[in-house]
Amino acid sequence: MPPFNPLVQKLAPPPVPSVFAWGRSYDGSRGPLIDLSQAVPGYPPHPKMLELLKEMAGSTAYCGYGAIEGESHLRRVYAEHVRDVYGADIDSQNIHVTSGCNEAFISAATAVAGAGETVLMTNPFYFNHETTLAMMGVTIKTVDCAADDGFLPRVDAVAAAITPDVRALALVSPNNPTGAVYPADLLREIFEVCREKDIWLILDETYRDFLPDPGRSPHGLFDEDEWEDRLICLYSFSKSFCIPGHRLGAITAGAKAVEQIAKIMDNIQICAPRAAQAAVAQAMPMLADWREGNRQEIVRRAKALRMVIAQVPAWRIDAVGAYFAFVRHPFPSLNSAEVAERMAKQAGVICIPGMYFGPGQEQYLRFAFANADVPTIERLAERLENFAAE
Amino acid sequence: MPPFNPLVQKLAPPPVPSVFAWGRSYDGSRGPLIDLSQAVPGYPPHPKMLELLKEMAGSTAYCGYGAIEGESHLRRVYAEHVRDVYGADIDSQNIHVTSGCNEAFISAATAVAGAGETVLMTNPFYFNHETTLAMMGVTIKTVDCAADDGFLPRVDAVAAAITPDVRALALVSPNNPTGAVYPADLLREIFEVCREKDIWLILDETYRDFLPDPGRSPHGLFDEDEWEDRLICLYSFSKSFCIPGHRLGAITAGAKAVEQIAKIMDNIQICAPRAAQAAVAQAMPMLADWREGNRQEIVRRAKALRMVIAQVPAWRIDAVGAYFAFVRHPFPSLNSAEVAERMAKQAGVICIPGMYFGPGQEQYLRFAFANADVPTIERLAERLENFAAE
Repeated sequence: MPPFNPLVQKLAPPPVPSVFAWGRSYDGSRGPLIDLSQAVPGYPPHPKMLELLKEMAGSTAYCGYGAIEGESHLRRVYAEHVRDVYGADIDSQNIHVTSGCNEAFISAATAVAGAGETVLMTNPFYFNHETTLAMMGVTIKTVDCAADDGFLPRVDAVAAAITPDVRALALVSPNNPTGAVYPADLLREIFEVCREKDIWLILDETYRDFLPDPGRSPHGLFDEDEWEDRLICLYSFSKSFCIPGHRLGAITAGAKAVEQIAKIMDNIQICAPRAAQAAVAQAMPMLADWREGNRQEIVRRAKALRMVIAQVPAWRIDAVGAYFAFVRHPFPSLNSAEVAERMAKQAGVICIPGMYFGPGQEQYLRFAFANADVPTIERLAERLENFAAE
Repeated sequence: MPPFNPLVQKLAPPPVPSVFAWGRSYDGSRGPLIDLSQAVPGYPPHPKMLELLKEMAGSTAYCGYGAIEGESHLRRVYAEHVRDVYGADIDSQNIHVTSGCNEAFISAATAVAGAGETVLMTNPFYFNHETTLAMMGVTIKTVDCAADDGFLPRVDAVAAAITPDVRALALVSPNNPTGAVYPADLLREIFEVCREKDIWLILDETYRDFLPDPGRSPHGLFDEDEWEDRLICLYSFSKSFCIPGHRLGAITAGAKAVEQIAKIMDNIQICAPRAAQAAVAQAMPMLADWREGNRQEIVRRAKALRMVIAQVPAWRIDAVGAYFAFVRHPFPSLNSAEVAERMAKQAGVICIPGMYFGPGQEQYLRFAFANADVPTIERLAERLENFAAE
């Protein structure tokens, strides 16, 4: 048998299916399974969203190939949305639609770095960012984020890590896995470092719609001079519209970067699925209130989780934010994969081991609390209290 | 401004949009534009297909993330279909669903070759295969296919080109751009060479449903010993079901290859869009007769094109097959891009210049005749006759 690409062969299998498998071994004795694993909204899409998806999917108008960069209607509407959120001057030509945010990431990363070049990430990191770069043959460097810093990267550590081989820094805010929301000032300082060092900043904002303080712009980077020449922002429609199965994401970048990304997207899949693009273009302004209601609900869930963890003193939340909490488990003799497996099988709670997000995260578990409603989160207290992993 | 990835920067912009732009400069003086450019069926999807797409897109059942490898229903139904077409022993675990066939190709190529390794293709080649490999940093070698051989590769030339650095051979049959249908015997001989040389064979069969002789299996490679260890076949639902905008393709490979490809797909986009998968799973057996009717229609279109070109003696068809004809233009002083541009602007006929499919193809144009109905194809005669590019 001829060899597989060693870069692919040495990747671990995707983690989410293996975590689900643990959950299937749970005998139900503690009550229904509580799923805090994959980041999926724990409520259905709005009926209007489903109606639009239905209408567009049934139309011959979206059966043919579409523009590589995305449907012009969605690019326009999403540009307006970005303009509103950041109070910045963003145009259709700054938008490239993708089939989900993983595809936005691989497209952005490919635009700025090839095999043998280096991309800097934080540790912990979103595992698909790491496996994507590893698969591409890109060298990965990381900046450690400490619990004492709320898992925010330190600007001096970022600056020190940007050696001449680094082509880009990839960040996620609100963060996956820690939930940490990067303050606008921190992002500005990091962007300045990127400017000084002349590298790209890729900023994944998949969870932007669930920020605790919606009144404030997440950052002012789109107002920075020449932002178009060094910033690529990523977004997902999956969480906010509850439609991950329809695979839709977007990139906001300079027109020159969009031009490079279009070449990549043409190779990967010509264009993102069109019917969902047309549906979201209409839903975006229509469902603003509903989305705001969901944001408030996720904030309530975060609060409920904080209260639950306060009830089980051996456990500790070291970071919590828009969608995730990074929780320190109380079993020092066990690593997080062992704890997560036992917790799934014995306590009927599934979550992702911190180890899957980088070395040194053996004491952490990622709770995707947004998946579960408040009563379900409240049931966690008893499950954790009675769970003896060791 | 920090640099872009030079592998991406040096790629030419995607060719189809630039060809469309030529068409937009046509003044209409010769009658409506005749579009023989992008490979899209020139008829709408079946009403039942639209109904199913509508039903599934409107269902909450497909809004969440799905299995990376694809919906189990579609994998099962498509495996059965492959079993029927080839009379071979194919199972669900041999199938990986993708978001279109370009994504099937990048996934298959990534599974077997990384940056710095070599993949062998034919010349002419499907341009997205070439740009995809170039973007990945994969070294490309080509085997020239001659008009005198009907643009089929010679087995001895293939064998000679497989130097020790070559990890895979990528073929397209029925071919894009030439239309040439590779005989089953030729594919068997080439597969044997791949076995001897211990390399992978990637076979893109996007246009398989439009073969002139549907009674015969396209090839017997799935009956070869250990086919699972060296064969990866690609397919597209876009052409056969007239739904390119919904982005759906599939890979048929050994279970071990599917396992590697799942890691790649997880990085690229987690899973293909689900509603369209669910719809096609139901449509596949339902629309068998309709698809057979379309196949016969495409055969009629091929015949009409042959008759048209016979009426304009300066022009010559050097290969024609399931979807495309590779046509030799009569202007030796002009390259195919010049001819195609002038033909679009002056004669209102758009097609893709042969040059876009590889060096040495300056005298050829690719006609995607399947796009146009028979009366439209018949109108080509006058357009070509009165077209003086020089």
